[in-house]
Amino acid sequence: MNQQQLIAQIHQKKNYLCVGLDTDLQKIPKHLQHQSNGLVAFNKAIIDATKDYCVSYKINTAFYESLGVKGWEIMEETLAYIPETHFTIADAKRGDIGNTAAQYAKTFFETLPFDAVTVAPYMGEDSVRPFLEYDNKTAIVLALTSNKGAADFQQLTFNSPEVTSSIAVPLYQKVLEKVASWGNEQNLMFVVGATRASDLDTIRTIVPNHFLLVPGVGTQGGSLADVSKYGLIHPNGGLLVNVSRAVIYAGDGEDFAEVAAKAAKAYHTEMNGYLV
Amino acid sequence: MNQQQLIAQIHQKKNYLCVGLDTDLQKIPKHLQHQSNGLVAFNKAIIDATKDYCVSYKINTAFYESLGVKGWEIMEETLAYIPETHFTIADAKRGDIGNTAAQYAKTFFETLPFDAVTVAPYMGEDSVRPFLEYDNKTAIVLALTSNKGAADFQQLTFNSPEVTSSIAVPLYQKVLEKVASWGNEQNLMFVVGATRASDLDTIRTIVPNHFLLVPGVGTQGGSLADVSKYGLIHPNGGLLVNVSRAVIYAGDGEDFAEVAAKAAKAYHTEMNGYLV
Repeated sequence: MNQQQLIAQIHQKKNYLCVGLDTDLQKIPKHLQHQSNGLVAFNKAIIDATKDYCVSYKINTAFYESLGVKGWEIMEETLAYIPETHFTIADAKRGDIGNTAAQYAKTFFETLPFDAVTVAPYMGEDSVRPFLEYDNKTAIVLALTSNKGAADFQQLTFNSPEVTSSIAVPLYQKVLEKVASWGNEQNLMFVVGATRASDLDTIRTIVPNHFLLVPGVGTQGGSLADVSKYGLIHPNGGLLVNVSRAVIYAGDGEDFAEVAAKAAKAYHTEMNGYLV
Repeated sequence: MNQQQLIAQIHQKKNYLCVGLDTDLQKIPKHLQHQSNGLVAFNKAIIDATKDYCVSYKINTAFYESLGVKGWEIMEETLAYIPETHFTIADAKRGDIGNTAAQYAKTFFETLPFDAVTVAPYMGEDSVRPFLEYDNKTAIVLALTSNKGAADFQQLTFNSPEVTSSIAVPLYQKVLEKVASWGNEQNLMFVVGATRASDLDTIRTIVPNHFLLVPGVGTQGGSLADVSKYGLIHPNGGLLVNVSRAVIYAGDGEDFAEVAAKAAKAYHTEMNGYLV
């Protein structure tokens, strides 16, 4: 699915919710922990229950890789189960030199046919470019993340040659500027953490038209109202808000899927209001 | 294997060579490309041929992930084949928020029992810390990489609060300083690209005692003499120089392993001279 098709889905479903499948064997309901292929059963039930209330699913590769070969099988099976009407994201945060980055692009665009993959910017242009060379695929590059550690490097301020020394620019804004020049609004999105929604105003002056993937709403404490206020653009939305734990672990009983559906529906309803 | 045991191996084998297993089905000898499990056969032959001339093997996860489930099986089988006398590195460059980073640490320290894993610093302390919490394991954090894209962000200069505005510090030096404060010389190493050996002098003033993993010698053009001159420390060496393509693809015929052994031996001999 490309971004035009995603926009059509946002208009049709009237939300911009991405459900994050950070599926952890220790956290799924007890009756599934002991079932063979319980993780797949959990993911399928969550997808069935939430698909009417979201436009995208994000698979956090770490939770699957930690299970080794079996985890990759579960990731394959889960990806294959996601309806074609939903934008699929591998949250893999890969980044390496050009020839290696090309292998990662192959991994998440071909071997596992995701629509998009998250990419780390630290190694620069040749580490991002291979992800931009696929038609109808999207690289989602980390700019400002939702965790405490974002302050360590992303928010350090620069004096760069093109600005006067009195204007200090944080690293994540340099990342937005520079990475935006490598691609276009069709093959690039950016990760912007929701816990810093006040920064979204500034971010929209740098990338007024790019889609933003916003994690951090829900368990991490970001406000959907703030994110929507500063991040939404018309007419395409330009925003995907990811919620993982607050949807998929909303319930922990036999009715977990029903409870997850209610949680997703609540986000959907709130988003519907902001989209009007 | 911990770093003390690695140092003992460096003293015993008289080299600090890491052989990078960036194994690509398109690049291994033709007779193995058509053999079932040809990649494993290739890796095993390379390990048998080079183990006397190196102290470490680095598996570049991208080349295996791009094959999906099968690739993870090959990675498992290759890792299990590496002798216990060699320091094993997962070149995975992972980095994510704390609870996700913990899953990646589990992946590469438990599920696949590597001795070390490469980690990206962009997301800050909580993305690195889970890797530092294992006994006898090492996080190897990216500082200055060997690719062209290193200039995009790693070499941007900062004015940080603790220095006067007349002293501009590049990002990678801030990364070295800050990350070094999160761990110690037993659980941390840094990646420093060999194509910028002249920077090693400065780097050694910031991290005088940490091991450095230096890629970029060989195909990428870095000089082993320069790297050794500026990077080696006594008495533990403090240096691992990685060579991937220039060793494993030195030959492409039926005698590829023999040719790879010769290439590795040449590095070993040169290193032996620098260690004296």
